[in-house]
Amino acid sequence: MTAHSVKDMAQALSAHAEGDLSIVFKGVAEPAEASTDDLALAMAAEFVASIPDGAALAAIVPVGTDWQAAGLKAAIFVDRPRLAMAGLTGFLSQSAGARPSIHPSAIIDPTASIGANCSVGPYSVIGARVQIGENSVIGSHVSIEDGAVIGADAVLQSGARIGRNVQIGARFFAHSGVVIGSDGFSFVTPEPSVAEKARKSLGKDSSETPVDQDWLKIHSLGGVIIGNNVEVGANSCIDAGTVRATRIGEGTKIDDLVQVAHNVVVGTNCLLCGHVGIAGSAQLGNNVVLGGQVGVGDNITIGDQVVAGGGSKILSNVPKGRAVLGYPATKMAGYIQSYKALRRLPRLMRDFDALQKSVSNKRDTD
Amino acid sequence: MTAHSVKDMAQALSAHAEGDLSIVFKGVAEPAEASTDDLALAMAAEFVASIPDGAALAAIVPVGTDWQAAGLKAAIFVDRPRLAMAGLTGFLSQSAGARPSIHPSAIIDPTASIGANCSVGPYSVIGARVQIGENSVIGSHVSIEDGAVIGADAVLQSGARIGRNVQIGARFFAHSGVVIGSDGFSFVTPEPSVAEKARKSLGKDSSETPVDQDWLKIHSLGGVIIGNNVEVGANSCIDAGTVRATRIGEGTKIDDLVQVAHNVVVGTNCLLCGHVGIAGSAQLGNNVVLGGQVGVGDNITIGDQVVAGGGSKILSNVPKGRAVLGYPATKMAGYIQSYKALRRLPRLMRDFDALQKSVSNKRDTD
Amino acid sequence: MTAHSVKDMAQALSAHAEGDLSIVFKGVAEPAEASTDDLALAMAAEFVASIPDGAALAAIVPVGTDWQAAGLKAAIFVDRPRLAMAGLTGFLSQSAGARPSIHPSAIIDPTASIGANCSVGPYSVIGARVQIGENSVIGSHVSIEDGAVIGADAVLQSGARIGRNVQIGARFFAHSGVVIGSDGFSFVTPEPSVAEKARKSLGKDSSETPVDQDWLKIHSLGGVIIGNNVEVGANSCIDAGTVRATRIGEGTKIDDLVQVAHNVVVGTNCLLCGHVGIAGSAQLGNNVVLGGQVGVGDNITIGDQVVAGGGSKILSNVPKGRAVLGYPATKMAGYIQSYKALRRLPRLMRDFDALQKSVSNKRDTD
Repeated sequence: MTAHSVKDMAQALSAHAEGDLSIVFKGVAEPAEASTDDLALAMAAEFVASIPDGAALAAIVPVGTDWQAAGLKAAIFVDRPRLAMAGLTGFLSQSAGARPSIHPSAIIDPTASIGANCSVGPYSVIGARVQIGENSVIGSHVSIEDGAVIGADAVLQSGARIGRNVQIGARFFAHSGVVIGSDGFSFVTPEPSVAEKARKSLGKDSSETPVDQDWLKIHSLGGVIIGNNVEVGANSCIDAGTVRATRIGEGTKIDDLVQVAHNVVVGTNCLLCGHVGIAGSAQLGNNVVLGGQVGVGDNITIGDQVVAGGGSKILSNVPKGRAVLGYPATKMAGYIQSYKALRRLPRLMRDFDALQKSVSNKRDTD
Repeated sequence: MTAHSVKDMAQALSAHAEGDLSIVFKGVAEPAEASTDDLALAMAAEFVASIPDGAALAAIVPVGTDWQAAGLKAAIFVDRPRLAMAGLTGFLSQSAGARPSIHPSAIIDPTASIGANCSVGPYSVIGARVQIGENSVIGSHVSIEDGAVIGADAVLQSGARIGRNVQIGARFFAHSGVVIGSDGFSFVTPEPSVAEKARKSLGKDSSETPVDQDWLKIHSLGGVIIGNNVEVGANSCIDAGTVRATRIGEGTKIDDLVQVAHNVVVGTNCLLCGHVGIAGSAQLGNNVVLGGQVGVGDNITIGDQVVAGGGSKILSNVPKGRAVLGYPATKMAGYIQSYKALRRLPRLMRDFDALQKSVSNKRDTD
Repeated sequence: MTAHSVKDMAQALSAHAEGDLSIVFKGVAEPAEASTDDLALAMAAEFVASIPDGAALAAIVPVGTDWQAAGLKAAIFVDRPRLAMAGLTGFLSQSAGARPSIHPSAIIDPTASIGANCSVGPYSVIGARVQIGENSVIGSHVSIEDGAVIGADAVLQSGARIGRNVQIGARFFAHSGVVIGSDGFSFVTPEPSVAEKARKSLGKDSSETPVDQDWLKIHSLGGVIIGNNVEVGANSCIDAGTVRATRIGEGTKIDDLVQVAHNVVVGTNCLLCGHVGIAGSAQLGNNVVLGGQVGVGDNITIGDQVVAGGGSKILSNVPKGRAVLGYPATKMAGYIQSYKALRRLPRLMRDFDALQKSVSNKRDTD
């Protein structure tokens, strides 16, 4: 990390600072582990007490902290710790920035249009008629197939894969191994399949012997459309739609190893955590937050501002604003009650047996 | 999309058509959004009503539809909508087809055998003694390790990884990021491990203090054998077997981000949806359908035509033809009953307490 | 496989052998399928009986087996079958070993330091100041970003991605598609978000209308630190920490498609099976075993020697030595009792209704 002054950091955070603002730090650290070269991160009140255990001269502290009592020479004051972390880490992760360059080993089709100030890393392959906006940074081993369109200020890390028929807005960030625009998983049997029958009868009807049938592929003509400011984590997959496009709304952030299946529509500013799977043709509103390993069934509709706790399996529609949990996902508060009751169920069963016997004995002796 | 006539499409679907079959369309669309250049997709009865909301001249409609009343100039009649979608999307996704070519940057071992009319994309690497059947299309950045065998008409999209000791039938389709033939996850400790003990005692015995032991790797000698007509989705992994091969039967389709572990045997014409995980040495019959995020425990046997709903965790054997759901997975109908009951459990507990009190009060007052 | 003598194999396993130790085998097989060229694997007693069904001259058998009665010419005796498998597969998977070489198409920054006897495959890209220890084998299409440090005897298979700010010990094994050091999934809204509110109120409070807010990224400055003897399966992701590093302890083994999120600390000799997801800032002790598709919530602490059954979702801290199962994960034995009771719950409800009616009828008739 390059050295920065307390003054520079305070300005980057638009935060008030006091003391010797010319103090320079070379790193950031938790208070107890900070050296004299570190800016101590004591944004939460419980960390202020441990500032004297380290050697930091300067710290970021909550508004109202008595920084001189904590032994500091300078302090920066913040209100909302996680928000300050966004500013701080953004400021410190700005690299001096290599000059943009197209590596000579990159293979770029002559009909592709690469904006000004773009970098393309070694061994990347960019197909015919691809458009990439200015200031974009394409890592090594990236492939972008014929006709894909990507907005300005994109970052595509090494090994990201962008398919044909994909349109992406500005400031897109794709981590390594991302696959956008792969075929949807959509197959059909000539006659109704075992899965169709089970779904219809909820598993009640197994009388008929299903015939072994081949699966015919429903191809994906629809592509993917992604709004501005979207980030997609490592090895996540967004599949192409069948007729219309699979869509990801502006500002939505997607973690690692997530699947968004064909025809899905995800609204704006959603968060999809690790291993989330959204099955075909499901629709998510805006500001939806799905915790890790959440599953959403096909053709499900989820309203705005829904929050699903980690591991929830959403098998029916969820109205706007609801917080859900469980498998199948139900209202969070109800689910917590139910599973607490479940843990007491073996005991209830014993108590019930006893009561039943006692009532029946009583009757016998009456 | 290139332009097609209604007549051509009807022929491709082997479907009856009426009206002006020379009408040409350049795209397909849902009825309400169709322009005069689109073929409207109104295969399901509920879509026929909205044909007049759009501008389509021609549509695909259910058998028996009064197409003239819907304002159409021509109509194609189909019976089973999803089946028609397979034919339609297959017909429209046929590309004019670039001429097959081996990119000069592809590194192909001189002992490899590449069939006639194959394409190999830029920066792909094909090892010693590899065999690839005719008409196959290998994308960019693909690696195929020494000795792997792949049948005719294969498609390997960019960044697919095929390991040593892998044999694959005809018409294989691997999406980007697929890894076939990686080592199985198989380790052993010199003395019985914490996991072995917990499994044996079902967690009841924690008296003994386990010793910290190193895990020794059981290497994978067995490879992978895959039948004809198999498709594997983006970033999915099929691990090599230990002594015998991991096997995927003919016609099986695998979605994105699926893991098939070492020694697993998957039958013919199965569907494994996104994030499915099948642990070591499990066996699946034919025509098995596993919904998204289903897990199958190691050494489990699953019969033919079993259907498991999304999120099911299969921890014990499942007989042929059964539909299951839940964690642990049980008969679908029983599971639905149980979880409905679970939601009423907190209330039952209150009612039980009341009844218990009332019985005991009654006794006191008798 | 090259040919080996029974004597060589016995020595490799440090095992006692009897009979004609000069017998040579070219493969290994299950007893019933073994040819005269195979060493039969009959380590478990139940396999000894089927030795005569095959044609093997030699076999690995449990200590105490009457090998001559089984029709063998030679036998190797072992105690713990899986442990013998580790030795056997390790011995047989030793390849003659191509001579180490740096492929001319590999792009290695002049400031990188590559140890003696390393191989680097075609089209791999190694950045500035990278250090790789001796005897390492880097496959094709691998990328290692500026400043990463990897110990001796590493294996990085094709398409593995190592980010900046990553330090890895000796004997690291990364399968294809692994992504180490990608950004953590950490975002914040200017005002409290729907997720923060739902978490605080456990979903009880949905009165306030949340405002649509943008997510600001908290960048990852902390990198990843990995101990010696760690293996990471295909397409798994270990994300960089925010301020301090994400850490994986010595001897830990990670399966395919696993996510270890930012700031997580995993102890020594843990096993993380396929699709495991560990959310931000969780801490795992030593010798922890997490079955397939297990999820661990953010900021959770898990003690040493904890074992979690497949599919468990761990939403609260787990003390040392406990075996857990379920969603939410609870003590394994208790969970099994609870779900057995759950299956009988619909019946209990009917019985309860009957009892309630009978008590109330009785009262009416008293």
